[in-house]
Amino acid sequence: MLGAIEAGGTKIVCAAGPVPGQIHARETFRTAAPTETFQQIQAFFGPYAESGQLEALGLAAFGPVGIAPGAPGYGQVQKTPKPGWTGVDWLDGLAPLACPVALDTDVNAAALGEQALGAGQGCQTLAYVTVGTGIGAGVIHQGRAPSGTGHYEMGHIYPPRSLGDVFEGLCPYHGDCLEGLASGPAIAARWGTDLSSLLADHPAHALEAAYLAQLAVTITLTHMPERIVFGGGVMKTPGLIDRVRAETRRLLGGYVSQGPASGDLGGYIVPPGLGEDSGITGALILASRA
Amino acid sequence: MLGAIEAGGTKIVCAAGPVPGQIHARETFRTAAPTETFQQIQAFFGPYAESGQLEALGLAAFGPVGIAPGAPGYGQVQKTPKPGWTGVDWLDGLAPLACPVALDTDVNAAALGEQALGAGQGCQTLAYVTVGTGIGAGVIHQGRAPSGTGHYEMGHIYPPRSLGDVFEGLCPYHGDCLEGLASGPAIAARWGTDLSSLLADHPAHALEAAYLAQLAVTITLTHMPERIVFGGGVMKTPGLIDRVRAETRRLLGGYVSQGPASGDLGGYIVPPGLGEDSGITGALILASRA
Repeated sequence: MLGAIEAGGTKIVCAAGPVPGQIHARETFRTAAPTETFQQIQAFFGPYAESGQLEALGLAAFGPVGIAPGAPGYGQVQKTPKPGWTGVDWLDGLAPLACPVALDTDVNAAALGEQALGAGQGCQTLAYVTVGTGIGAGVIHQGRAPSGTGHYEMGHIYPPRSLGDVFEGLCPYHGDCLEGLASGPAIAARWGTDLSSLLADHPAHALEAAYLAQLAVTITLTHMPERIVFGGGVMKTPGLIDRVRAETRRLLGGYVSQGPASGDLGGYIVPPGLGEDSGITGALILASRA
Repeated sequence: MLGAIEAGGTKIVCAAGPVPGQIHARETFRTAAPTETFQQIQAFFGPYAESGQLEALGLAAFGPVGIAPGAPGYGQVQKTPKPGWTGVDWLDGLAPLACPVALDTDVNAAALGEQALGAGQGCQTLAYVTVGTGIGAGVIHQGRAPSGTGHYEMGHIYPPRSLGDVFEGLCPYHGDCLEGLASGPAIAARWGTDLSSLLADHPAHALEAAYLAQLAVTITLTHMPERIVFGGGVMKTPGLIDRVRAETRRLLGGYVSQGPASGDLGGYIVPPGLGEDSGITGALILASRA
């Protein structure tokens, strides 16, 4: 049996299955302090480990986290606003389960899941964006998540401000970076509710699409993927992905004249094929490679 | 003998040498119409080809250009504002020289040159930025330029506008994208002269640094390189690289807390180690691999 953990900023999903794409058991709990979280993880996987069934674990972890095997800080949570989590060592916390662990960021794992079994099947280069509590993006190139000295942090790019938008942004590091302007909490702070609760002609929709399209443009110009999957809670807003597609097209201005980022972008900016399971599926794939 | 061609928007450099890093002959001419350009290239390399000395050619070509061997459009210039160049096939034009040709973009070649023999030696992931007639950036990861469905076009990201800057930008596709706001021609259009001619306390310097720092931030968040080399004519302005470094640090806001993009960035944002020869050196490396 393979074990998978998707550790997000809001909730943690544990799952077990024989192969990626098949989940036999799953449990979800709110992201708490590290000690409580490791107890819950231990409670879920303990029986599999004790019976010798648990072959490997795949961890899709919220960032920033050290993902380079062998490098200093591997498996450790870096500076994060989440109370109690800075410096936590995932590998230490999972050591009682006594099996190999492979880890990557939550967005890289989601990209991996979508590339292997979801909306990105057949793509040599796939990007996955999540728009929820935070904004993040992962890239899979030829089946692997490339990274430089660490994982990418694309949600923190600075987009041009939309005309008349004076919201100061709420990223604790950057103020009005993309995450500070367009994440779920930013939407709630601007409008006092979530995007799906606002009528289709409310300006919040166009504003959100304008900012997310800047991320789509930046990903296009910096990675030239075959496709970009847009997932996460905010993307469930009806019509939002169509608006992002139209605005991305407008911003690209026909400059990319060939390939998937040209034309109407209908097959370029797409919703997840795995629904809520992009990340946990990716974590199972990580486990299968551990 | 290896042959190298660096084809930029303004000038074309031809060089011949026995190994990358050694240039025995070189000639530079202004980028003209394709027919004239191919005649000049033929005139330079013809004698080497006829005597059987020319083993291979490396081409560092201005973009957009097809760089995926075997894919449709390989070696062809894509839609470009340069008169007469759209649709030109480099491989057809170089066919009379009857030797293997390897090609990449000018910025990828420059990144390759700097990584192998310049300021990026030892870097697993290196970015090279040029700021001149246009703005472009290339990335080398483990000795190769990664690419998705095509080469990157990072010079066309949209940066946030600096406070009070109402210049409309001059990119024919995007208006106020980075290239439209901060390339050499944009500086000339704003101020009527080049940056080096303006006193050190002229606001043009801080403005230029603010825009270029946005590119450094975006490259950091999307590729996490070990180092970013800033080259090109505009970067020869005294003090500019220091301003870019300081502004990048301010914009990152301490978010990248480990690795080369943390701290004072003194070893992270650096000038080319090969001076004017980053691109032609990369083209020689391409030839050596052809």
